[in-house]
Amino acid sequence: MIPIPLQSLIKNMAKMPGLGPRSAQRAALYLLKNKEKMADLMQLLDTVKDELQTCQICGNIALESACEICQNLQNKRDKSTLCIVEDIDDIWAMERSGFKGVYHVLGGVISALDGIGPEKLTINQLLKRISENEIKEVILALNAGVDGQTTSHLVAQRIENKEIKVTTLAMGIPVGGSVDYLDDGTLMLALNNRKSI
Amino acid sequence: MIPIPLQSLIKNMAKMPGLGPRSAQRAALYLLKNKEKMADLMQLLDTVKDELQTCQICGNIALESACEICQNLQNKRDKSTLCIVEDIDDIWAMERSGFKGVYHVLGGVISALDGIGPEKLTINQLLKRISENEIKEVILALNAGVDGQTTSHLVAQRIENKEIKVTTLAMGIPVGGSVDYLDDGTLMLALNNRKSI
Repeated sequence: MIPIPLQSLIKNMAKMPGLGPRSAQRAALYLLKNKEKMADLMQLLDTVKDELQTCQICGNIALESACEICQNLQNKRDKSTLCIVEDIDDIWAMERSGFKGVYHVLGGVISALDGIGPEKLTINQLLKRISENEIKEVILALNAGVDGQTTSHLVAQRIENKEIKVTTLAMGIPVGGSVDYLDDGTLMLALNNRKSI
Repeated sequence: MIPIPLQSLIKNMAKMPGLGPRSAQRAALYLLKNKEKMADLMQLLDTVKDELQTCQICGNIALESACEICQNLQNKRDKSTLCIVEDIDDIWAMERSGFKGVYHVLGGVISALDGIGPEKLTINQLLKRISENEIKEVILALNAGVDGQTTSHLVAQRIENKEIKVTTLAMGIPVGGSVDYLDDGTLMLALNNRKSI
């Protein structure tokens, strides 16, 4: 019913995160109906494919072999504070929070279900980086699920240098959150870590 | 922070239906990390752009100037039953329901808010098609919102040939639906149109 080339396009697009079979259908139809947008998209994909690379230092996406943050051209970055994140978009989120240290992209978290062991992450590069640079603090900013926490503990253990402070993000009620919608675990942590005002 | 070419790509992808700024970010990163998938996508977009066209008869997407349904190669289509749909993906949905007539893509519905008047729809082509072919029944399968209903009434009025039966899809409880989650309007319609079993 749907022409084969269009079927293949929908199938390919449905594999992107955030898109399912139906939304891929709608997106593909949208592109078909807006040939200009489609040409733009093809052009942009081409540019991105040619121009972007992985930062050799932290694993961020970059226009050169070192990303803007690692280049530290404006000298505003505190290179002794290293923030460990799962993925590149976590860097973008941390940047919005105003963090001024540097990053290390771990490339995921340990997951028994997905068959991801420590060897698939950039832990060795991280340890090498820590040993070769003057790092005062390592902040583990991994997602707060079970896998993220397991990985945080493992990374913390592997950092043998006792001079380095290893921290994780605080857990508690998010800004604007309602207490009665909060899950029990978060509420318990928020209670245990309560602060005087 | 995010390299400019990647920003442009994210901005372009965020305009697709079903994707917002965040999901476009994730999708763009996914493509960046899977260069093979990205090359496939570019190839597929290219093929689709070159090979697909609009069916001159019904407005469906097609590999030739007439779509598979209008070509009716297997002679299984009842060309006297014409189903009016808003968009191409509605054809795909109707096909899944087992409908065996032919289609006419209206290209949208009348909407005061979006500034879409009757002249932007393919109503004239529809009337021409009805006058030139032997049509026994026109089924209005537009979405069941206010705009869809307004459009259905307008199209029904414009079809002046009184010999042609004009129908719309039945309204009521969807299969698997629970009565207590149903909105009042649907429940009222389902009650008014109740059937003996």
